[in-house]
Order: sequence, then C-alpha cells, then structure tokens
Amino acid sequence: MKRQAQSSGVSQTSHDSFGAETKAKSVNALRPANALEKWLATRIADKMGRPPVRLVLWDGSVPHDPGSAIGTLHFHDRAGLWKSLTSPELGMGDAFTSGQLSIEGDLEEVLYQCAIGIDKAGHRRFKQSLTGRLPVPRINSLSGSAAHIAHHYDLGNDFYRLWLDKELVYTCAYYPTPDASLERAQLSKMEHVARKLQLRPGMTVFEAGCGWGALALHLAKQYGVKVHAFNISKEQLAFARERAKRKGLADSVAFIEDDYRNISGTCDAFVSIGMLEHVGVEHYAQLGDVIKRTLAPHGHALVHSVGRAKPTPVNAWLEKRIFPGSYPPSISEMMQIFEPNALVVSDIENLRLHYAQTLVEWLRRFDMHVDKVRAMYDENFVRAWRLYLAGCAASFRASALQLFQVVATHPRHNKVPVNRAQLYQDAGSPRWDL
Amino acid sequence: MKRQAQSSGVSQTSHDSFGAETKAKSVNALRPANALEKWLATRIADKMGRPPVRLVLWDGSVPHDPGSAIGTLHFHDRAGLWKSLTSPELGMGDAFTSGQLSIEGDLEEVLYQCAIGIDKAGHRRFKQSLTGRLPVPRINSLSGSAAHIAHHYDLGNDFYRLWLDKELVYTCAYYPTPDASLERAQLSKMEHVARKLQLRPGMTVFEAGCGWGALALHLAKQYGVKVHAFNISKEQLAFARERAKRKGLADSVAFIEDDYRNISGTCDAFVSIGMLEHVGVEHYAQLGDVIKRTLAPHGHALVHSVGRAKPTPVNAWLEKRIFPGSYPPSISEMMQIFEPNALVVSDIENLRLHYAQTLVEWLRRFDMHVDKVRAMYDENFVRAWRLYLAGCAASFRASALQLFQVVATHPRHNKVPVNRAQLYQDAGSPRWDL
Repeated sequence: MKRQAQSSGVSQTSHDSFGAETKAKSVNALRPANALEKWLATRIADKMGRPPVRLVLWDGSVPHDPGSAIGTLHFHDRAGLWKSLTSPELGMGDAFTSGQLSIEGDLEEVLYQCAIGIDKAGHRRFKQSLTGRLPVPRINSLSGSAAHIAHHYDLGNDFYRLWLDKELVYTCAYYPTPDASLERAQLSKMEHVARKLQLRPGMTVFEAGCGWGALALHLAKQYGVKVHAFNISKEQLAFARERAKRKGLADSVAFIEDDYRNISGTCDAFVSIGMLEHVGVEHYAQLGDVIKRTLAPHGHALVHSVGRAKPTPVNAWLEKRIFPGSYPPSISEMMQIFEPNALVVSDIENLRLHYAQTLVEWLRRFDMHVDKVRAMYDENFVRAWRLYLAGCAASFRASALQLFQVVATHPRHNKVPVNRAQLYQDAGSPRWDL
Repeated sequence: MKRQAQSSGVSQTSHDSFGAETKAKSVNALRPANALEKWLATRIADKMGRPPVRLVLWDGSVPHDPGSAIGTLHFHDRAGLWKSLTSPELGMGDAFTSGQLSIEGDLEEVLYQCAIGIDKAGHRRFKQSLTGRLPVPRINSLSGSAAHIAHHYDLGNDFYRLWLDKELVYTCAYYPTPDASLERAQLSKMEHVARKLQLRPGMTVFEAGCGWGALALHLAKQYGVKVHAFNISKEQLAFARERAKRKGLADSVAFIEDDYRNISGTCDAFVSIGMLEHVGVEHYAQLGDVIKRTLAPHGHALVHSVGRAKPTPVNAWLEKRIFPGSYPPSISEMMQIFEPNALVVSDIENLRLHYAQTLVEWLRRFDMHVDKVRAMYDENFVRAWRLYLAGCAASFRASALQLFQVVATHPRHNKVPVNRAQLYQDAGSPRWDL
C-alpha cells in the first residue's frame, strides 16, 4: 500500500526488525526438508493461488519461487509447516505468532498479494484443512459475549492509547482526503455518522457498543444530545466515565454496563458502530427488535460493521486469537436485523478502503511503539497484532472484507431529506489510489 | 398527498368524474344487503386495519364508519363484495376495474390510508382469501418473459406518450427539489445514474431493459459513450431505434432485441433501470453472472428496482392485471444478484419517496388525458390504470414499496472516489413533506 511505503520505514524492513529472534529460535530444526515436506509446501502455495511471494523452508530450499517476488514466507521449522497444512488459517497465523513462520517484505503488501491469490484460488479451498474440514463458529450467549469482549477490549487502555487516535476510536475512520490524519478522519467519521442520524439538540441517542466513549461524548458536545451508551467491556466503560467527568459531560452521557439486548426506553436516534461483528447472525433479528421497539417514529438508526461481499466462514485465526465470537456479515445477512422487523433501509455505504487506510495507519503507529508493546506483553503478542492489523488492512484492500454503514427508519418516515447532499456539504471529491 | 391536492382538481373528485357510469350499472343489485353481507364487509374493514375510510354497500348501509372518514369505498353490488372477500387483492382490484367498487375522495390518499391500515393489520392477513390461500407467483422463462413484457409495454406508445414525460422515461424519477417538474426530475435521474456509473467518453455501456431508449440516448449524447441497449418489447425498440436515427445517434446506440441472459461482450458500465421487477428472484444469480462476465475490472454496475422492506408476496391484482410475472424484491433478495458472483456492493440508495412523487405526477397527467385514454381503450381500462398509478403512489408513500438503486463493482476496484460527494456537486438539500 503506497501510504505505508512512503510513511513507514518500519514495516518495509519487517523481517529484519521483527524476525531476528525468530531465526535464532529456529536453529533447532536443522534436519533438511524431505521431498514430502517440499511437495506439501507447494500445496500451500497452490491454496494461496501461487502469489508473487517466495516460500522458503528451514534448510534454504525454495518450493515456490515466482521469479519477481515481492516478499518471502520463511518456514523456520517443520512444525510450523505442518501446522499451516493441517489448518491453513489458524495454523499459519499461529506459526507466524510463535515465530515458526516469518514474512520478509512489506507485511501488508505481502498479505495483500496472498489475499488476492486466495480469492482467485477460492477462499473455501484455502480455509480447508488437509481433511477438508472448515472452521466452526461459536455462539454469543449473554455470558459468552462478555467473555469474548473482555478477551479483546480489556487488554488495557494503555495499550490501545499507544497506537489509536487521541480520542481512542477503534473502528473504521472516514477519510475526507486520502492524506488526512487519522485524528481528522476519525472526527470526520463521527460527523458523517451524526449527519446520517439527522441529530438535533435535545434528542436522545442510544448507542449499542460504545467503545471508549468517543462518539457518545462527541455527539453530546457537538450536537447537544443526551446519549445512553451501552458496553460490556469494563475497562472501556471505566475509561469512558472518567472522560465524561473530565469533559463535564457526565450529565449528558450515561455509560451503561449492559448487553444491547437489554436496552429499553425510547430514543430519537440509534447507533451501533463496530459492535455487530460480535453479535452473531443468529441474534441479528434480536438487535433489530431492540431498534424497532426503542426508536421513535421520526428516528434514524445506523449500524456500522465490518462485512463480506458474500457469506463467508470467519477467518479461524482471527476468530480464535484476536476476536473470539466475531463474524463479519454480508449485506444479505445484515438484512436479518431490519427485514424481519419491518425497518426500512434508506442507505448503505461501503467504506472498505477507508478501513484499509485506517488499519495501515494503526499498524504504522503500532510499529512506532513496538518496543513499549513488547515490554507490556511479549514478542508473540507483537507478532500476532502485527499480523492482525496488516492482515485486515490487506483484506479490506483486497475486498476480502467490507465495511457497511446501514441507515434505516421505521416505515412512513416521510419527513426526510430529498437526497444525500447534506452529508457532503463541505466535502471535496478526491479519489483513492490503493 | 399534498402535491396532488394542490395541483389536480380531477382526482379530488374522482368519484364524481369516474364513478358515474358505475352507479348507473349497479341498479341491477337492488336487493338489500343481508346481515351476513354486512358482517362480511366488516371483515374487509378488519383486514384493512379499520382505516379512516367508510364502507358503503349497494343499499346504502354503512358496515364500517370511522367517523372522521377521508373517503368512502362503495360496493355497488354483492358480486363485488364477494370477489373482494374471496381474494382481497385481486378481487378488490377487479371489482374497482369493473365498477362494482368505486372510491370517493382523493384516490391516492384513500389508498394510502388503506395501505397504512393493511400494514398495521399485517399484509399477510390482507392477502389471504377466506380460505387462507396466498397468491402464487409465476415463472419468467425466456418465452414467458416475452409474453409478460408485451402485455404491459406493448400497449401502444401513443398511450404512454399521453402521460409520461417527453423523453418517455417509465421508471422512478429523481427530484432535485420536491416541486421540480417531472421532465427535470427524469433528467436528474439520468444524471444521477450516469454519475454513479463514473462514465467517461469512449466507454461502452450495456443497458439491460432499456424502455423507449431515453437513458441510452442521453448517455450517448451527454457522455460520449457507446451503448448496447437490450429489450424484449418490440414496440419500445421500434420507437427507440427511430429516435436514435432522428437524433443522429444510431452509430452510438445499438438497440438490441434480446433477453438480458444473452448479453455478451465487455462493457465499462452495466446499468439496468426498472427491469429487475420482471426478472424473478430465481434468475437473479443469472443476472449477476451476466454482470460478472461482461463488466470490465474497472467498471461500475447499477441495478435500480422497485423493492420491499422485507420479502413479501407480490400484490395479486397488480401481478395479474398490470405487470404479469413481476416481483419487487427486498435487499436481501437483491443480494442474490451480487453475493453468489462475488460482486462488491458499494452503495445502496432508497428512492422510495421519489417514486411516490413520480407516480402522483403520472396520475395527474393521466387524469388530464383521461378522455383520450377512454377513447383508445374503455372505462374499465381507465379504472384499472388509475388504481395502479394511485395505488403504487400510495404504496411508496406508505413504505409498502421501496425503490433501491444498488451500485456494485468487481473486487479490488480501488481507483474509486473517496466519498459520494461527486453525486451531489450541484445539489441542494431540500426535504420531503409527503
């Protein structure tokens, strides 16, 4: 991705910066690769659609060499290779995390080329283990959800503060121009959302899944609305409440520790940014029911979520190691929120490339502070998070992931703008070049 | 609907203007309504959610009188009542067409209030006949489609010329402001579509279902593109070809008599406005396959269709008498075009109220020329078409119908605008008041 190449020297040399320890570890695997292992490595290359990336084994043999390679996957021992074969997504992710697999070259670009290859070869094929098994998603019960959310969002606010924007917005930004700062783009996202919600002073907004409270506080301050913001991450809520007090907004924003399913009362606008990924398709109609029974007849609801071009099994590594219980839905799946509840969808916008840009910037900042992260956790944590951030950036750029913002209303909400021009009153018309 | 009330004296007095013949006919049904018939009439009122509309029978009895009624349904004979009971949608439509049922008051407003009531009481309940049966849709084979399309679109260009805009655009317009003329709004629609398609001179556009050719000719003239425009209505094609010659655009636009399933070659943009309603959900993946194999990697596809907030059986009368083989899909159903073919949806816009406005204007013009229509066909035809135009206007206003414009691309089409501002460069931000 151009921006990264220009602005981050770190990821350009990722192998050198992050792979050193890895190589040292792998000296215990000096027995040369046998013919079977070399052949199996070519099977991995096949599953990945033979991308322009070299595959190198621990003995220096090169089972896949496309000539003009833009990077290299190094398998440093046979255990890493077998892991990658028996469960490609989970195994390769784990092998990378443990240092059994390292990647030379621009991490995001290598993963982007692999994502293109996997798309061409067929995602299903890549996901299948040697036995043809596909990963099985898990269920988000009330207690299960709480555990899943704690796993990721309670990692520690100090960690997220290292590489998120100052307001700690941990969802897709909205870039007014491709070269805008992350801070500017997160502000633009909140403004874009506020405009879609048609806020007016005195309104009540319900927010399902409020993160560290940035949007709730922004809306209360800039639009004079009252916000009831729900979350089940204790760490995030404690931080958000502290922040509301500091900003003098404690009377305008109530941060509530509760599941979205328990939201009650009436609101003029309902918003959920980046929570749906943790809801599970089987609960979408319930979320829609909450919107239906809490949203006033004149209100707008906005649901913003990572998604897919078509229903696709979740990435096994990401689901197991980074976001337990997560699943990015296709539009047809997202419609299970609205259609069974007779909510009328008025607008869907795909912000895929905005999330690619956001993630590249997060990775750049993460890399800037990588020594602090390593000190807080360990090298495996660093590798896992670099893989997650770079992998997701690559996936959005490669269209393996989407970002859908859906706006809906009750039927017969007829006092609405004639067109969407109000969303773009102060916007230019730049183009992406990703 | 306000606009109608302001601008059309005709539909305000629809009962007087269009019901006179009806009353004369109904003198053969003078036997008073019995207790069963009166009770059955209240069942119709129940199925319609007891709207603010009186029900009057042939003997003057009033089985449903809501007090502050905005209009009256007159059943002029018992056959009309029974028809309406045994198959509410089809029967009431047919009874209205034959004059056994007439409507006093603003036709669109009465139908709007009925649509609200039916929505509240549950569409399914209204659709069911006395025996609980629901209407069954039919299949659009290649030969079936041709017959269905001829039924409606080959009615005669002279007829459509009476009440459509000058360019004969027979799909939802796009109103820059609520008081814009139909001519201006149809032009704005074509511009809106062209902007969404990101056209540049020299591009090739495929259009599936081109009507009388207005969009194809507009794009060729204004954007310097070549258009291959497909249609299976002979009347429309003959007219479109004549028009292309007259405008000196015969070299730029090829009007082709063929089914969308037979489109081949490569295009830079694919557009289909108001054809999907005639395709049938079971064929959506085929349409998507056509888009996938003909659209260039850098191209945009736009599909514009009447739709629903959720999957809903088609209106039996409309399907049987006006649009055989038609079905308006929900968004989740429309996704069967894109998701199985790995096309990435970038934008969905709901233009529901634009179609309400368009239909009210069509009805106003139809009513202005009603004597000519009666002379071309007969009184039953006039009644059927007034019911269709007013009923659809009411349905869009009541959210029983939607209008979805969906834009999609191939994966990894990354050279796209950063936002949608380019669609609104010369637009204001007016609001609806429908």
